[in-house]
Amino acid sequence: APEAQKEVKSDEPKLPSWNEGENKNAILDFVEKTTTVGSSDFVPEKDRIAVFDNDGCLWSEQPFYFQLAYAIDYVKKEAPNHPEWNDSPVLKSAIDGDINGILSKGEHGIIEVVMASHTGMTAEEFSQNVKDWLATAKHPETGMAYNQMIYQPMVELLSYLRANGFKTFIVSGGGIDFLRVWAEEAYGIPPYQVIGSSIKAQYEEVDGKKAIVKTPELNFIDDKEGKPVGIHQHIGMRPIIAAGNSDGDYQMLEYTTQGSGPRLGILIHHTDSEREFAYDSLSPIGNLKKGLIDGPSLGWVIVDMAKDWSQVYPK
Amino acid sequence: APEAQKEVKSDEPKLPSWNEGENKNAILDFVEKTTTVGSSDFVPEKDRIAVFDNDGCLWSEQPFYFQLAYAIDYVKKEAPNHPEWNDSPVLKSAIDGDINGILSKGEHGIIEVVMASHTGMTAEEFSQNVKDWLATAKHPETGMAYNQMIYQPMVELLSYLRANGFKTFIVSGGGIDFLRVWAEEAYGIPPYQVIGSSIKAQYEEVDGKKAIVKTPELNFIDDKEGKPVGIHQHIGMRPIIAAGNSDGDYQMLEYTTQGSGPRLGILIHHTDSEREFAYDSLSPIGNLKKGLIDGPSLGWVIVDMAKDWSQVYPK
Ligand SMILES: [Ca+2]
Ligand SMILES: [Ca+2]
Repeated sequence: APEAQKEVKSDEPKLPSWNEGENKNAILDFVEKTTTVGSSDFVPEKDRIAVFDNDGCLWSEQPFYFQLAYAIDYVKKEAPNHPEWNDSPVLKSAIDGDINGILSKGEHGIIEVVMASHTGMTAEEFSQNVKDWLATAKHPETGMAYNQMIYQPMVELLSYLRANGFKTFIVSGGGIDFLRVWAEEAYGIPPYQVIGSSIKAQYEEVDGKKAIVKTPELNFIDDKEGKPVGIHQHIGMRPIIAAGNSDGDYQMLEYTTQGSGPRLGILIHHTDSEREFAYDSLSPIGNLKKGLIDGPSLGWVIVDMAKDWSQVYPK
Repeated sequence: APEAQKEVKSDEPKLPSWNEGENKNAILDFVEKTTTVGSSDFVPEKDRIAVFDNDGCLWSEQPFYFQLAYAIDYVKKEAPNHPEWNDSPVLKSAIDGDINGILSKGEHGIIEVVMASHTGMTAEEFSQNVKDWLATAKHPETGMAYNQMIYQPMVELLSYLRANGFKTFIVSGGGIDFLRVWAEEAYGIPPYQVIGSSIKAQYEEVDGKKAIVKTPELNFIDDKEGKPVGIHQHIGMRPIIAAGNSDGDYQMLEYTTQGSGPRLGILIHHTDSEREFAYDSLSPIGNLKKGLIDGPSLGWVIVDMAKDWSQVYPK
């Protein structure tokens, strides 16, 4: 198939919520050189693959992952139908709204709450539950709807890339089915361009019709070295742009930027305690240490949220 | 995001390699009614998902799957570097070109040859090997390059659907990485819209750079009830069009056509022994029995290759 090599240009200001400076310029320059026919760095449209982490990269993740807030709210709401949940310390913590009781069990605590809230139902039922929750749930600190706490500068970047022939994908440690419910409306990214952690699914008859049922067994963890593997399995190509915000994205940025030809790695550094949250190497959520140390010498763009963004959430 | 509801129309003849008749009409009518704004069967562009089996649906699969021909050719070529392969009856059969010796071991025979030929290398090396093979290998009966043995009427259908706002995906029992090498050139389907069976992959350092290495462990079998599961994992939506040619596609067509709203199931029946191959319920490759029995009452379009197609392969 002939490669579409057309340039998409527009008179609108580019990335309006990004402040002028070397980081904004690095992004604009990269897009310019990879999409200009005749440029030595020109990349055919079919190879313009851009991958984005979600939590802390496209939307907020403090004081803890929003998907975990969903899981806890679901367990609280459904607890009267599941008296057996009181026998589990982790689920009892969820019912009592004791987030530390869950997090103190580490990854296993999170997985147990996720299994209780994400499985034993059809994929359609799960999607509807998430939709219903998003319509009413509010963030405990900002009072905003969770899907309003997306980063306007990143939404602009996604849109700008697509206007320049890039395909944009989410590559998240979070749950693939949770993200797919709202990623298209929030980011313009359709369900089939969402990659994430997943549980197993089965094809079964439910109420006389065949459906996909979510079962309580881990299928894939899309984090750290899992991210390049997930990219391989879903996309089958090495991206040329990768953006993340934690050391869980290190391998994804490494995989992306070690490819030949022009490559762009972006790390979002949470430096804005006034408009969002400030955290990095000491935070259990979105821990970023190695990326900050190695990133600059690897040519990665380290975005300083407080300095580089004129706006955080959509107005 | 607002739904793109524009209709794509053109003055070119539609599906020129399809003979006039009720099957061609059923396909054209379906596309017309689902893409006409104001039609009670109108489907928003974002929901226009169409899935296609590959072997025997988009290209030929006789006298045995072309991917198996690749695997055997690879084992023959590499045998001098792997004296240990002679200790395996299956691999010895491959080295001797004894296809029946492989098939007599059933699925395990095929898997052993696939593991020997598809693993222990990076994803990039594998892709290059497949590319090199396709450039020179010839089908034993037709003498054609394998990737010339694609079905012109199906290539037209894929293109017609995309021109009408559908996203086209491959959902194959064959190997996902094998397909991705050539599906874009053959069908206009990019790597990230290919779903298939897969082996596990690891993120590792190879020659000083990080790469995806294909490892000898099954990851997913995309066949029968695996097809709806694979669709769920990769696409995250129930398709509205599904096409296949064997009972391995039964669940995919069932899953697709049991959804609410307009749905189209298509089965390609191999009836043309002169221009292609004629086979169905007695063939070990592409076995089709239940689909032929149930399909008509389920409203599935049963394509009669000899009658419905004016041309099989591209000119
Ligand atoms: Ca993150
Ligand atoms: Ca088939």
